[in-house]
Amino acid sequence: MNTEKLILDGACVANDIKEQLLSRVKLLAEKGITPCLATILVGDDPASATYVRMKGNACKRLGIESRRISLGKDTSTEQLIAIIQQLNEDSDVHGILLQHPVPHQIDERAAFDAIDITKDVDGVTTLGFAQNAFGFAAYPSCTPAAIVAILDYYQIPIEGKHAVVVGRSPILGKPVSLMLLNRNATVTICHSKTKNLASIVGTGDIVVAAVGKPKFIQGDWIQPGAVILDAGYNEGNVGDVDYEACLLHASAITPVPAGVGPVTIATLLKHTVDAAEQLAFLR
Amino acid sequence: MNTEKLILDGACVANDIKEQLLSRVKLLAEKGITPCLATILVGDDPASATYVRMKGNACKRLGIESRRISLGKDTSTEQLIAIIQQLNEDSDVHGILLQHPVPHQIDERAAFDAIDITKDVDGVTTLGFAQNAFGFAAYPSCTPAAIVAILDYYQIPIEGKHAVVVGRSPILGKPVSLMLLNRNATVTICHSKTKNLASIVGTGDIVVAAVGKPKFIQGDWIQPGAVILDAGYNEGNVGDVDYEACLLHASAITPVPAGVGPVTIATLLKHTVDAAEQLAFLR
Repeated sequence: MNTEKLILDGACVANDIKEQLLSRVKLLAEKGITPCLATILVGDDPASATYVRMKGNACKRLGIESRRISLGKDTSTEQLIAIIQQLNEDSDVHGILLQHPVPHQIDERAAFDAIDITKDVDGVTTLGFAQNAFGFAAYPSCTPAAIVAILDYYQIPIEGKHAVVVGRSPILGKPVSLMLLNRNATVTICHSKTKNLASIVGTGDIVVAAVGKPKFIQGDWIQPGAVILDAGYNEGNVGDVDYEACLLHASAITPVPAGVGPVTIATLLKHTVDAAEQLAFLR
Repeated sequence: MNTEKLILDGACVANDIKEQLLSRVKLLAEKGITPCLATILVGDDPASATYVRMKGNACKRLGIESRRISLGKDTSTEQLIAIIQQLNEDSDVHGILLQHPVPHQIDERAAFDAIDITKDVDGVTTLGFAQNAFGFAAYPSCTPAAIVAILDYYQIPIEGKHAVVVGRSPILGKPVSLMLLNRNATVTICHSKTKNLASIVGTGDIVVAAVGKPKFIQGDWIQPGAVILDAGYNEGNVGDVDYEACLLHASAITPVPAGVGPVTIATLLKHTVDAAEQLAFLR
């Protein structure tokens, strides 16, 4: 790494992943298989609707079928799980994505765990989390996998580094911590109850922001030369990191937008193609 | 906590747990149910044989049935899994313990994961790990649960503390890290690739040694006033911590033996009784 600031360009990493998928999708087409991702959107949250649309469009551009299922905001857990089970049994569907978050009356964990592990391309099931933690997951959670993919693309070493993860959600903070641990980083997991957060973040060679609060990570917290990955995406296209301030101290940083986000979507597409190939292999 | 050194007496914590179990076992007996733990020992490792015997004896003293299954050192993964499946289906068996480690020809992970989650009283399955990580496990891994039980018994606060865990195994380092995280500690996970281990251990308010190397954790690594939990048990009754040297700096410490070990066994018994009660409730 040189001493200039390295802007970790998510669009570039995502394009690299998608380019590799094109030939794989073509090979599958020759066998009569079109990879298919079913997306489920519950309710009418505009941000969630945008995410689902973006994912659907990304599928189409690669020749992946996107089957969109939209459910009313009053959908019950039982109704949602029944639909997931139909998709589990539908051999034309290779991947299932339930857009997070779901309305409050739904037991999101139960709904996630209803997804068959062979179709859990978004990496949200309880079992998938543990397989990932133990290093043998078929499909790790997409955002954590995207963070690791960005580091790998830019050949930023993980082994022996001190990674500080701010956030501990089941689909982001916890799995990314364990992925970095399995790549031989020393990992510190921080959260809302952490004391002296600024000084702990300051010990990180790699800092992952996964907290869901705009511009939460401050520039003067950052160790000179640290690598910053901002997994946040808040209203107004703002990440969890105070980008301009952190850029002054970091050696490398993901912007928002065009940082972790596009790589997350590319990872979802990759997992969907993986799942379709798995099916082609099995039959 | 006063300023004197607090020796965290595992025998005392274990007795407290076992005392609470006595009345529960009696109640189950009135319903015609004897909690039953099946232990599987593969091969003839003398240390493992001792552990299994200790667990069996601890069962008997509480009125818990212990069914010991000893298999030859050449047992295959398939043979072991077939036996586990028989125990899964046996309604008289409430808990199944496969003594770790198994001979090298066996896929230990596959064998652990063959244990039905409702009988996984030792907390070794992949799914159980994730349920624990997400805070809703029926039966967390016994040693991690024992460590938390010791802290709770002595009313040592966990929330907001910086816990440093040395070790990252699937049944000890990883689950104890996530348990402490779920109790609102800030958690750092260290391992063989960690750089500056001494100085990182020195940031810990709580230090968990789970590394499997005798006297590995040095006294001068320890922050004054830290609480030390030694989950190691090496040849010659020696833990992973240099006890005498660490005692000088710590405010509280578990000895070896009579520290984490007996509480681990008591936790196993508690989970077995929990499982038997669950069955009594369901029928």
